[in-house]
Amino acid sequence: MIAELISVGTEILLGNIVNTNSAYLAEKCALLGLSVYYQTVVGDNEERMEEVINTALNRSDVVILTGGLGPTQDDLTKETVSRVMGFPLIEDAHTKEMILQYMEQYKNNNSKRRITDNNFKQALVPQGALILDNHNGTAPGLIMEKNGKTAILLPGPPNEMKPMFEEEVFPYLRKKQPETIYSQMVKICGIGESQVAEDIQDLIENQDNPTIAPYAKTGEVHLRITARAENEKECKKLIKPVVRELKSRFGKNIFATDEDKSLEEAVVDMLKDQKLSLSLAESCTGGAIAARIVNVPGASQVFARGYVTYTNRAKRKCLGVKKTTLKMEGAVSSKCAKEMAKGGCLISGTDICLSVTGLAGPGGGTDKTPVGTVFMGCYYNNKTVVREFHFSGNRNKIREQAVAHALAFLRDCMLEGIEKKD
Amino acid sequence: MIAELISVGTEILLGNIVNTNSAYLAEKCALLGLSVYYQTVVGDNEERMEEVINTALNRSDVVILTGGLGPTQDDLTKETVSRVMGFPLIEDAHTKEMILQYMEQYKNNNSKRRITDNNFKQALVPQGALILDNHNGTAPGLIMEKNGKTAILLPGPPNEMKPMFEEEVFPYLRKKQPETIYSQMVKICGIGESQVAEDIQDLIENQDNPTIAPYAKTGEVHLRITARAENEKECKKLIKPVVRELKSRFGKNIFATDEDKSLEEAVVDMLKDQKLSLSLAESCTGGAIAARIVNVPGASQVFARGYVTYTNRAKRKCLGVKKTTLKMEGAVSSKCAKEMAKGGCLISGTDICLSVTGLAGPGGGTDKTPVGTVFMGCYYNNKTVVREFHFSGNRNKIREQAVAHALAFLRDCMLEGIEKKD
Repeated sequence: MIAELISVGTEILLGNIVNTNSAYLAEKCALLGLSVYYQTVVGDNEERMEEVINTALNRSDVVILTGGLGPTQDDLTKETVSRVMGFPLIEDAHTKEMILQYMEQYKNNNSKRRITDNNFKQALVPQGALILDNHNGTAPGLIMEKNGKTAILLPGPPNEMKPMFEEEVFPYLRKKQPETIYSQMVKICGIGESQVAEDIQDLIENQDNPTIAPYAKTGEVHLRITARAENEKECKKLIKPVVRELKSRFGKNIFATDEDKSLEEAVVDMLKDQKLSLSLAESCTGGAIAARIVNVPGASQVFARGYVTYTNRAKRKCLGVKKTTLKMEGAVSSKCAKEMAKGGCLISGTDICLSVTGLAGPGGGTDKTPVGTVFMGCYYNNKTVVREFHFSGNRNKIREQAVAHALAFLRDCMLEGIEKKD
Repeated sequence: MIAELISVGTEILLGNIVNTNSAYLAEKCALLGLSVYYQTVVGDNEERMEEVINTALNRSDVVILTGGLGPTQDDLTKETVSRVMGFPLIEDAHTKEMILQYMEQYKNNNSKRRITDNNFKQALVPQGALILDNHNGTAPGLIMEKNGKTAILLPGPPNEMKPMFEEEVFPYLRKKQPETIYSQMVKICGIGESQVAEDIQDLIENQDNPTIAPYAKTGEVHLRITARAENEKECKKLIKPVVRELKSRFGKNIFATDEDKSLEEAVVDMLKDQKLSLSLAESCTGGAIAARIVNVPGASQVFARGYVTYTNRAKRKCLGVKKTTLKMEGAVSSKCAKEMAKGGCLISGTDICLSVTGLAGPGGGTDKTPVGTVFMGCYYNNKTVVREFHFSGNRNKIREQAVAHALAFLRDCMLEGIEKKD
């Protein structure tokens, strides 16, 4: 089955935002065994959108459109697809009710927000379409089927689109697919993308069924192993030896073999399993590691508190970093990272404390401490481990990498500690 | 002049990588005043690529293709465009020399890389094309002109494509463009997207030159006003009254009129202007507000420290929240937010402290305190202001909204305080 992705939005055409929706949907389609031959971006223009939709429906079986479902005059996706496919628009009482509920809830926050007539434009749906409730916004998703062709309309904001896809579209598409496709994820941290690519080159060159596809994320590499067979059991049988081989090659660097498990979740799970409490002492990452940990529901069971000690004074007052350390070695130093971790652990009364101090730039770099230098400390079992990193890229890129590597470092320290305890 | 972007690559079709090239090129085209109506992604397949190129050359003046210029059999972009446009391929001595030089240099770094016959495939160029030297790889860029249409072929890797675009393609396209385009951004916080859309509907309905385009972000709405005229001065003259009108309609909710200024930057600037130091006391946002503040280079001038007090114990120990408050009112309460802000301010010795405590879910909701309830406190000038919010959506959505609204709330409190002082 051939799928095609259409993103609607002037924002993408103007380059205001990167089209992450297409990457997300393309990955999901690959997972479902759908072949994607084309992705298109078009603006909120009736004529051009119609042309793109017609072309897509001609050459593909399933067309997934994102964006252009908003309440404004500009938003034309639903209207245009309905006209092209010959569906009349009617008001849907359930959708209207959903919108009212969502808006009422939202209204309480800010008296300036009002329910406008525009919002009710979103309650119009193509007659006969499958309606997908939106729990994170006002635009419902829609699935329209006619003459063996399927159009799937999803809202543009990723936080509305993704849950809707996971909950409703994924199972819907899976049912349409005759062949069973099954895939298993192997997630790796602490090894670079090109190293992983080199380490599995022999496997990838000789692959047929299953296939291995690498996806590089910041500080992580995900390998998706996909098999096609008559049923899930046969697929799993094909996948098993490949996963075993990858485990023997990457060992402890594999943090998850679960599609949905994030690195922070793996870290929180490990803390829970070992009954360890965590505190954080962040400087250059500015709370972003804490925010990743708190992404995990139930993180409060293990995460006690975090300090964002952005100034030297805060490092001294909150964490007890010594004045001489800051003066002699500087805030971006191995010694400072060490004292931050130990001080944070003692004052928090937690079992483990992770510290990060570094220079994200753009200014402030020296020959000794260039921009991108980051020191991380981990205090655990009465001792501190410190590691030095050198990241490249702009301020954001450096901080993002620091966050991902900090989580991997924390995991490493726990693994080592656990080994020693055993 | 109409431009169209085509990205060639199976990695994008499979969702292995996000198509950042298109976002980059789209932004540059907008800056050059080129209208981009379509972006397409196609794989390394001759037939489908030919179809896409023909369509693009039909409907657009300039077609920019990235990717598929590599040395392997799979790479077909140059061959296909040349055939479609009727250019024969010939070997170019200069390009061959460039490739040899690059490969020799590269060989030293990595003994595994060899110069293969494949590489000389890259020395074949369309006869009469403009050749763009690649200083970061082996594939030259190409510009081909025929019958009033232009095809620009660029390598796929961003670190090869971007310098080539900046150095050669940008000046080439600027020369082709007779009209000047200029745009100005107006960024709004604290008002919802549909409210803003309604408030400017009359302006949008009657617009011609300049145009107003709204972009919704979490907790923000951006309006881009774009004018076309003979020169920049004329453009600015057209834009000025529109910006004045928007200022009179949205007043203090406008936090920036600068393309690159983020909400956190506006907040940091305001702190700097008023010479105020900031501390943060976060619970449900888990350090994400601090991370936003630290996005701003030089934030250390005003941001002293942040507390991520995720447990009740941490709220008591770090911020001095009273045991009775936590017991009687709970951690998600107006009183707790108030005590967090005041306690955080006093212990940090800062001028202002913002606190956030709420329930991001998915579990833990009650009738009195449903999931999505967030209290924010701001201690400033010896008094605390508390505001209650109710956000909807999943855990991440609730936290994202809380972060954006916290920044807007902090800005509000400062604006009010400043007014009172005057």
